[in-house]
Amino acid sequence: MKANNKTNNRSARPTRIERFIPIVFWLRRYTHEDLHGDLTAGIITAIMLVPQGMAFAILAGLPAQVGLYASVLPPIVYALLGTSRTLAVGPVSVAAIMVAQALSDLPGSVDPLMAAVTLALIAGAVLLLMGLAGIGLVANFLSHPVLSGFIHAAVVLIVLNQLPTLTGIDVPVEWTISGLMNSVASGLATTHGITLLIGAASIALLLLAGGPVVRLLTRLGIPRRRAMIVSRAAPLLVVILSTLAVTLGNLHFVATVGTIPQGLPMPTLALPETQLAMELLPAAILIGVVGYVESVSIAITLANRRRQHIDANQELIALGAANLAGGISAGMPVAGGFSRTMVNFSAGAHTQLAAIITAVLVAAVALFFTPLLETLPKSALAAIIIVAVSRLIDPRAIVNTWRFDRVDGLVLLATALGVLAIGIEPGLAIGIALSLVSFVVRAARPHVAVMGRIRGTEHFRNVRRHKVETWPQLLFLRVDENLTFANAAFLESLVSNKLASRGDIHHVILVLASVNSIDSTALEALERLAESSREAEVTLHLSDVKGPVMDQLERSKLLKAIEPGQVFLSAHQAAEALR
Amino acid sequence: MKANNKTNNRSARPTRIERFIPIVFWLRRYTHEDLHGDLTAGIITAIMLVPQGMAFAILAGLPAQVGLYASVLPPIVYALLGTSRTLAVGPVSVAAIMVAQALSDLPGSVDPLMAAVTLALIAGAVLLLMGLAGIGLVANFLSHPVLSGFIHAAVVLIVLNQLPTLTGIDVPVEWTISGLMNSVASGLATTHGITLLIGAASIALLLLAGGPVVRLLTRLGIPRRRAMIVSRAAPLLVVILSTLAVTLGNLHFVATVGTIPQGLPMPTLALPETQLAMELLPAAILIGVVGYVESVSIAITLANRRRQHIDANQELIALGAANLAGGISAGMPVAGGFSRTMVNFSAGAHTQLAAIITAVLVAAVALFFTPLLETLPKSALAAIIIVAVSRLIDPRAIVNTWRFDRVDGLVLLATALGVLAIGIEPGLAIGIALSLVSFVVRAARPHVAVMGRIRGTEHFRNVRRHKVETWPQLLFLRVDENLTFANAAFLESLVSNKLASRGDIHHVILVLASVNSIDSTALEALERLAESSREAEVTLHLSDVKGPVMDQLERSKLLKAIEPGQVFLSAHQAAEALR
Repeated sequence: MKANNKTNNRSARPTRIERFIPIVFWLRRYTHEDLHGDLTAGIITAIMLVPQGMAFAILAGLPAQVGLYASVLPPIVYALLGTSRTLAVGPVSVAAIMVAQALSDLPGSVDPLMAAVTLALIAGAVLLLMGLAGIGLVANFLSHPVLSGFIHAAVVLIVLNQLPTLTGIDVPVEWTISGLMNSVASGLATTHGITLLIGAASIALLLLAGGPVVRLLTRLGIPRRRAMIVSRAAPLLVVILSTLAVTLGNLHFVATVGTIPQGLPMPTLALPETQLAMELLPAAILIGVVGYVESVSIAITLANRRRQHIDANQELIALGAANLAGGISAGMPVAGGFSRTMVNFSAGAHTQLAAIITAVLVAAVALFFTPLLETLPKSALAAIIIVAVSRLIDPRAIVNTWRFDRVDGLVLLATALGVLAIGIEPGLAIGIALSLVSFVVRAARPHVAVMGRIRGTEHFRNVRRHKVETWPQLLFLRVDENLTFANAAFLESLVSNKLASRGDIHHVILVLASVNSIDSTALEALERLAESSREAEVTLHLSDVKGPVMDQLERSKLLKAIEPGQVFLSAHQAAEALR
Repeated sequence: MKANNKTNNRSARPTRIERFIPIVFWLRRYTHEDLHGDLTAGIITAIMLVPQGMAFAILAGLPAQVGLYASVLPPIVYALLGTSRTLAVGPVSVAAIMVAQALSDLPGSVDPLMAAVTLALIAGAVLLLMGLAGIGLVANFLSHPVLSGFIHAAVVLIVLNQLPTLTGIDVPVEWTISGLMNSVASGLATTHGITLLIGAASIALLLLAGGPVVRLLTRLGIPRRRAMIVSRAAPLLVVILSTLAVTLGNLHFVATVGTIPQGLPMPTLALPETQLAMELLPAAILIGVVGYVESVSIAITLANRRRQHIDANQELIALGAANLAGGISAGMPVAGGFSRTMVNFSAGAHTQLAAIITAVLVAAVALFFTPLLETLPKSALAAIIIVAVSRLIDPRAIVNTWRFDRVDGLVLLATALGVLAIGIEPGLAIGIALSLVSFVVRAARPHVAVMGRIRGTEHFRNVRRHKVETWPQLLFLRVDENLTFANAAFLESLVSNKLASRGDIHHVILVLASVNSIDSTALEALERLAESSREAEVTLHLSDVKGPVMDQLERSKLLKAIEPGQVFLSAHQAAEALR
């Protein structure tokens, strides 16, 4: 909490330059204490990132070093431009599986690395343009159930995809759940004993370090903070132990990462071929937008804890630039990773200097230590991936969504099944389409209350829930929903039928207290209603019209069409005037 | 008004049988006066329907008699089942052009009549099923701007489509605006003088009868009601005069309707081929739904004028059955026609007996008078179509839509351009998709007010608009929109940034007076907000939560997540408790 207050004291308004290059804002206020936290967090995150980066690159169907390259320049660019002080940008599992699926659709003649670079460049350009145009709201179309359904399905795909590597089965990659299961089943007999052993031992080590070991160490009196380091270093331990096992045991029949070129590639901008770019465009947009939505949601949560500011639009620019940086440095698409960011945050990161330190350390590995990784078995990396993604599974979230809202629950399931059965892009498309449809369906049958006045007061309430006074010639209707094309016909036929069934009504007062907007379909319906009611000697009135809605109506013919009907400030005023 | 009161007195609640077969309800209460009106209206509508029916069949690319067949059984079936007493069901121009476009996509080997029958059967079955399942709200997806954009584009397509027939140019049918214009332009030199003369004279006669003649007659002292009959008989007059001209002038080089078989086809149910049915399915659904939406909108408007009841779901069943009747009687898809219904209504129709009389008269024409129509020139029918559809054009409606709401204006234009440039089905699909997107975009940046209390009262108002008292440690926020995936991220980042910029806030009170529903994405955002705020020593509270929303929240973790935050009945109560 001490650190928080510190941060508060420094949270003055950023200047113009500081708004566009947020790092200037922090560096100007940088303290010794910040450096301590950033250094620790930077080192811990680097220990986690090196094996994860390579693993995610392999998951994406790319050479292991691509994951290292994507962990250097992109986080540095994000550090300069991003508004989150703790988001850890780099290769992430979900983007990796999306890259893998996009690559699998391409003809064999296309170089996977070139395709990955193209994906990163397009995703970056799209996010950057969205940010510059200020249309970040496009990302809103990815609702929580769609995202949750997608991520759970992606985890299943990733695990199935890594099973062959983990067990040494030699089967072709498949992209639908049925294809994957078939190929895994058919190759089961070819399981490679030693490979499987390494994989299983790695998983066991990672799972033990994830909880039991930490609990044991804290029980032995070691501070929890220090004990957690063991858990975070577990992937590195797996890398070291499995590499040693292969080298010392001379297990040359186990599939390993192989030669990794030493050094870092010079940044070069290779403009992608038009045809390839067009083919990859939908995948690239989804990779960019999914990464953005996930990153911002993590960033906001963490910023909120320290009362820091996140500018969603600036995040588009920063993540867009980070992906472009990934593209020009022979990397892959990047985003803010959930678990890595949490580790970075809880290890004490105060600013993006932590991320820069991490990047420098990863660069050092790429420059000097890659020869040591040649005999790193792929099954160990598969184990790291499987354990990492399994933490994204949250069955309680699914149950809660289902319980809270059946429609959202169905959208979640449909997205997950779509992604598993027919692929990531069509699955996401189905989910987004269903989200949109559910939006309309929800608004289609709004709650409508017939109202009366609580005797002796000015308050109007639902006649069904309260004892109220009513007047036979007046009908007060309150619609609890914005008036749109989704419910215009419903409303029109509701009023029309109320009039048909109660011949004594002479005034209908629509109470618009809950109406925040009216679209042209609803306006048309109200105009028709006003005109046709008049012939039946019924006058339409409005009451409790909100300011912005009134501004809208003044641009329409409705106020003229309801004449001699009026607009009353409240239902009470209407009752006084009309009864 | 007298008739209206009559109707009122008779508007008892329908019995169960009367609800399913509404004609029973009217017939039980049928009066002598009703018969007088129905007889007049039935005859006048028949006079209008015979030439229109044939014209719309030719527009659809079908033999002229199909239009007559579609004017007999379908309106009788609707009369039995429909809840509108004045809707005139039969061939309509918009459905005709949709049929024409659907037929043009089929291979040449398919019999157009069989395809039209298939369209009618599928459209009917779809509407009937929707009605039986009670899911009429599917029709809501066709918003006013989409429908208006579509109809205006359809009118342009129809007029261009009929120009060759009107002028005698012999060019192939084209379905995009550019194709149509090219083919008309290239064939211009082949214009057939006499054909054009007949067409132009017909248009002139129809236009004159539509207004000037009526005005002249009323000025000469003839009652307006009787003068209007001239206007309504004009199409029949065009048919008689042009047929006589061709016969007496021996103009056998003018394209005529040709031999029309005498009699009516026996109803037969020819189940459509599966492959053809699948190909026509999207077109059939659109034809059914567009026809339904148009019909119900007319029906509600007219019912409202006489305080009659329209049951939207029963309308689905009735129009579905009418289309099935069209399908089994060698007809084409049908709907309630706008202009014909208006004529029927204003000619005094009280019940659907008028429609039955019309149908009997059309049947008589088909049985006995078709030989007289053999030399009816097609250009005269083209003139009737062009004048009829030009009445659907309403530039003021377009301007009003644009003025009232830019987004809806853009949806209208995009639909119209889509229909013209790439075709009816994709154009409508674009329009519907944009409607859905606009729905989300509208909700994306809700109006949010920071609130304070008007001194000495319990009322809270926007601090920007009113002089109010506020408390530094309390932040009252009222969101004027339902909380959904469209604005969850906006809201989260808004609150988060308010907290970052005002370090003294300790309580955030979300005033949910305008919130009618919360979806799971928004719920997730609120839960994250509550948890992350707590770490920054800020408590989240809710106030003015509506009943249905509270029911929702009680199924969620939110009320637990905001603890020690509370749910207050009003902002005033929150202020009293927290300040």
